[in-house]
Amino acid sequence: QTVQPATGAAVAETWLPTLQVDTPQQGFDLAIVMARRAVKTTQPDVAVLKAQRPRYAGDAASLIDVSAVAAAWFATIAAANDYWRE
Amino acid sequence: QTVQPATGAAVAETWLPTLQVDTPQQGFDLAIVMARRAVKTTQPDVAVLKAQRPRYAGDAASLIDVSAVAAAWFATIAAANDYWRE
Amino acid sequence: QTVQPATGAAVAETWLPTLQVDTPQQGFDLAIVMARRAVKTTQPDVAVLKAQRPRYAGDAASLIDVSAVAAAWFATIAAANDYWRE
Amino acid sequence: QTVQPATGAAVAETWLPTLQVDTPQQGFDLAIVMARRAVKTTQPDVAVLKAQRPRYAGDAASLIDVSAVAAAWFATIAAANDYWRE
Amino acid sequence: QTVQPATGAAVAETWLPTLQVDTPQQGFDLAIVMARRAVKTTQPDVAVLKAQRPRYAGDAASLIDVSAVAAAWFATIAAANDYWRE
Amino acid sequence: QTVQPATGAAVAETWLPTLQVDTPQQGFDLAIVMARRAVKTTQPDVAVLKAQRPRYAGDAASLIDVSAVAAAWFATIAAANDYWRE
Repeated sequence: QTVQPATGAAVAETWLPTLQVDTPQQGFDLAIVMARRAVKTTQPDVAVLKAQRPRYAGDAASLIDVSAVAAAWFATIAAANDYWRE
Repeated sequence: QTVQPATGAAVAETWLPTLQVDTPQQGFDLAIVMARRAVKTTQPDVAVLKAQRPRYAGDAASLIDVSAVAAAWFATIAAANDYWRE
Repeated sequence: QTVQPATGAAVAETWLPTLQVDTPQQGFDLAIVMARRAVKTTQPDVAVLKAQRPRYAGDAASLIDVSAVAAAWFATIAAANDYWRE
Repeated sequence: QTVQPATGAAVAETWLPTLQVDTPQQGFDLAIVMARRAVKTTQPDVAVLKAQRPRYAGDAASLIDVSAVAAAWFATIAAANDYWRE
Repeated sequence: QTVQPATGAAVAETWLPTLQVDTPQQGFDLAIVMARRAVKTTQPDVAVLKAQRPRYAGDAASLIDVSAVAAAWFATIAAANDYWRE
Repeated sequence: QTVQPATGAAVAETWLPTLQVDTPQQGFDLAIVMARRAVKTTQPDVAVLKAQRPRYAGDAASLIDVSAVAAAWFATIAAANDYWRE
């Protein structure tokens, strides 16, 4: 068992200063960060998350759902960056 | 068994005065608040919710779904704040 | 067994005169109303709905889905109110 | 067994002349029509659909999904009507 | 067993020249085409798809999901056509 | 067992320089690329992904979900290209 900071305590740290990033790829990476951060609001124990990974990373239905979640976060980030139009 | 105010009674309290918040991170936090508030419209008994937490917090599929829900609420909040563009 | 008005008959009643409401919280409440109304298009018998409630209200996956549905309805209502920007 | 027109033949009929309707409630009704029409592209036999109804109309998870689908169609219809703003 | 062109080969063919169509109903039909085309990126063998049809076409949960997918594709097509506003 | 670059290492490579593509069909193809890339953030081992393919490619529910995910990525790409309006 690991010792985790309480969710409330973690909120004090600034982890999302802006939605604006330079490139679509950085936006994609931020989407993954946000997707994982949302998971941590419910399961803050990283060790538990890692323990589950082999199972869902080997399950097609879960992986498809992971992509859906990433798409949802990315949609907002892309809009926030005006789709990186030049 | 706990005594809960009826859903109707709870509506009288103001818990969502605005969608405008100062930072993306506050928007993220508000998304979590709204996601949980929506759950309470169906299950107002906090004790029941807490009792379920160990189970779904240890289930990858549920955690992925939690992230999808957070993304959905965040999308609206981010639009409401014009994506915190400067 | 309860006697229910046919779905067709229920449509004659005006239950959704507008999407414009005064506050985000009223918008949230309207989202819940619309979410439930959509359920009634398929299951108009309120008694059947109430009978199922203890089961899904005690099931985390269902509650997460409820929040997703509320988010979807709220997104449209919030846009309809220009996000209650001042 | 009922005789059904082929999907291809059904397309010839005009069932969706416009997305513009007078009121939000008519928009809601149109969302239900479109949701059902989409189902028919995969299962055109109305008798099969009716036979399934008692089962899914008594299943909370299915009913929650029905509401999600209605919300998705309604979102587009509402945008198409500029949210019936006055 | 049928002989299918490889996915890579199929990409060379132009099947989606535009998102602009004349009517909402044509947009609906295009949504179904796109939904099915997306399925083919994962399962290009039409015979396998047809073999599964009786099963999912008789399953309410799958049919509800089909409608959700159609709604998602339609949303983009409708926006691309400015909702066929006159 | 294959040797895979770590997820962290893969990020250094530029795979998403832009969301702007010339045609809707190229946008569709990019949606599939993004959908798969999101899967790889969780399961970077291509061999594991390929091993699962026969199973989910033969499962209607998974295929419907694949289409939903493609629609979600495509929605953002289409907006980024102003829907390829002429």
